[in-house]
Amino acid sequence: MSAPLPPRLAAFHANGADRYGVVTADGIIDLLPEFGHRFKGLKEVIEAGAIDELLNAAEGRRPSYREEDVTYLIPIANPEKLICVGVNFPSRNEEYKDGQAAPSKPSLFIRFPRSFVGHRQNLVRPPESEQLDYEGEVTIVIGKGGRRISKEKAYEHIAALTLCNEGTIRDWVRHAKFNVTQGKNFDATGAIGPWLVPFHNASQLDDIELTTRVNGEVRQNDRTSRMMFDFRYIVNYVSTFTTLVPGDVIVCGTPTGAGARFDPPIWLKPGDVIEVEAEGIGKLVNGVEDEKNAIN
Amino acid sequence: MSAPLPPRLAAFHANGADRYGVVTADGIIDLLPEFGHRFKGLKEVIEAGAIDELLNAAEGRRPSYREEDVTYLIPIANPEKLICVGVNFPSRNEEYKDGQAAPSKPSLFIRFPRSFVGHRQNLVRPPESEQLDYEGEVTIVIGKGGRRISKEKAYEHIAALTLCNEGTIRDWVRHAKFNVTQGKNFDATGAIGPWLVPFHNASQLDDIELTTRVNGEVRQNDRTSRMMFDFRYIVNYVSTFTTLVPGDVIVCGTPTGAGARFDPPIWLKPGDVIEVEAEGIGKLVNGVEDEKNAIN
Repeated sequence: MSAPLPPRLAAFHANGADRYGVVTADGIIDLLPEFGHRFKGLKEVIEAGAIDELLNAAEGRRPSYREEDVTYLIPIANPEKLICVGVNFPSRNEEYKDGQAAPSKPSLFIRFPRSFVGHRQNLVRPPESEQLDYEGEVTIVIGKGGRRISKEKAYEHIAALTLCNEGTIRDWVRHAKFNVTQGKNFDATGAIGPWLVPFHNASQLDDIELTTRVNGEVRQNDRTSRMMFDFRYIVNYVSTFTTLVPGDVIVCGTPTGAGARFDPPIWLKPGDVIEVEAEGIGKLVNGVEDEKNAIN
Repeated sequence: MSAPLPPRLAAFHANGADRYGVVTADGIIDLLPEFGHRFKGLKEVIEAGAIDELLNAAEGRRPSYREEDVTYLIPIANPEKLICVGVNFPSRNEEYKDGQAAPSKPSLFIRFPRSFVGHRQNLVRPPESEQLDYEGEVTIVIGKGGRRISKEKAYEHIAALTLCNEGTIRDWVRHAKFNVTQGKNFDATGAIGPWLVPFHNASQLDDIELTTRVNGEVRQNDRTSRMMFDFRYIVNYVSTFTTLVPGDVIVCGTPTGAGARFDPPIWLKPGDVIEVEAEGIGKLVNGVEDEKNAIN
């Protein structure tokens, strides 16, 4: 994790407004004043194919904010689709201990954006469960839409990369006989970010290291080259049934080592700090807090 | 199904624009000219609590269009959430023949709006499968948002009712070990509509007849009073994990009798006509066609 990150795009709140801009080692260059009339947010930037235009506009400018002075938001506030891939690394399937062979197709589920917070925000543990768990995942953002995108052309359809802590309320994913929807969609139980790294080369995805730490201890560590369903396959498979559009977000699966795997399980609790880090993308950091205002 | 329907709201395309208005026995009163500057679509009407304002504005006016001259759209084009309840009528659980007891919590999954077409549009059978199946369902639209909404107050949060043909690609729902996502999300394989009937009284939901016909033959017929998880429970349960907002759509489950149930199964094919009808809500009618332009 030594190479410095390239300039990247982030969505953030500062000075009373939701903004977006370019993050560099020196700070954040706010581009809302210049581009706000054209693009409401980063989804609209991607729709317009304007990532490079923003990066160019930021070049050589002095930062508007220090990173510590902004509140990071999830990069795409309102994607048309936010799809997650389940059970996508070796040994993950065995964690389910149901004696079933590894599946031949990926398990997919959908999350609502409101189930995520941005970088450096706290995940929220709801009063309904103590089983808040982490899942670190590499996440792709679609740039060019399409249906039945071939594996060969899949990478041409990816605009940017980010990370996800696909936080889960473990007991609620097994509430019903099918589908994990409810355990994956508690408000503010996961995180996406910190930012969008523009995607240009296959080497940014093909074999990168992905690590999740809790309070500094490595819990998950694997390489994307070992994914059962690789990024090209995922883009091809998902676009077989649904038309992908710019700004769609696909969260691509987590390595073995979630808290549910330990015996006894180790759930997240207030005060914990979770880091999801991947080579060339960065490090997504989140704390945990108990829900404050359970509205009835 | 004898009582005439009250005036209701519909989204439709006519004269080169997406419009909305009020449907009566005489035709459709286009309200886009008068309200378009305030409300982009029916979601925005619901957010503003303006359903009655639109109904009042239409009263006594002559229709702008005959029903046969418009193309119906799904009523809410872009809900923040579109959640479906699985396995929610007696005998439906047994159809799975897996020896498992009826679940104590509802199975939930999510569909993207682009998996639906409007009233009188054709469902699209993709080249990947011949297993296109119907599921007739009563559908609620949230008016007042909230989290952890009590069962007692649940009906106060429902703005309107509509119908769904929750069309499914049966073999693709079992592609993976968990989740039905892909078989439920092929583009244009289901339908929502025809319109939104304003919800005012519990009697509009508590015990209404729901019928699905294929080419005139009754395939599904049951009453909402027999649902395993009733509408109040669903609103309460879903809002436990996610904050409901105005315009959210919840498709509440289908009776026994889908095509997959027959031996051998009877799949939908081009030329079929499916009607989903419920007392007081209306009749959603759709044909079937093969996908024309499989883009590669």
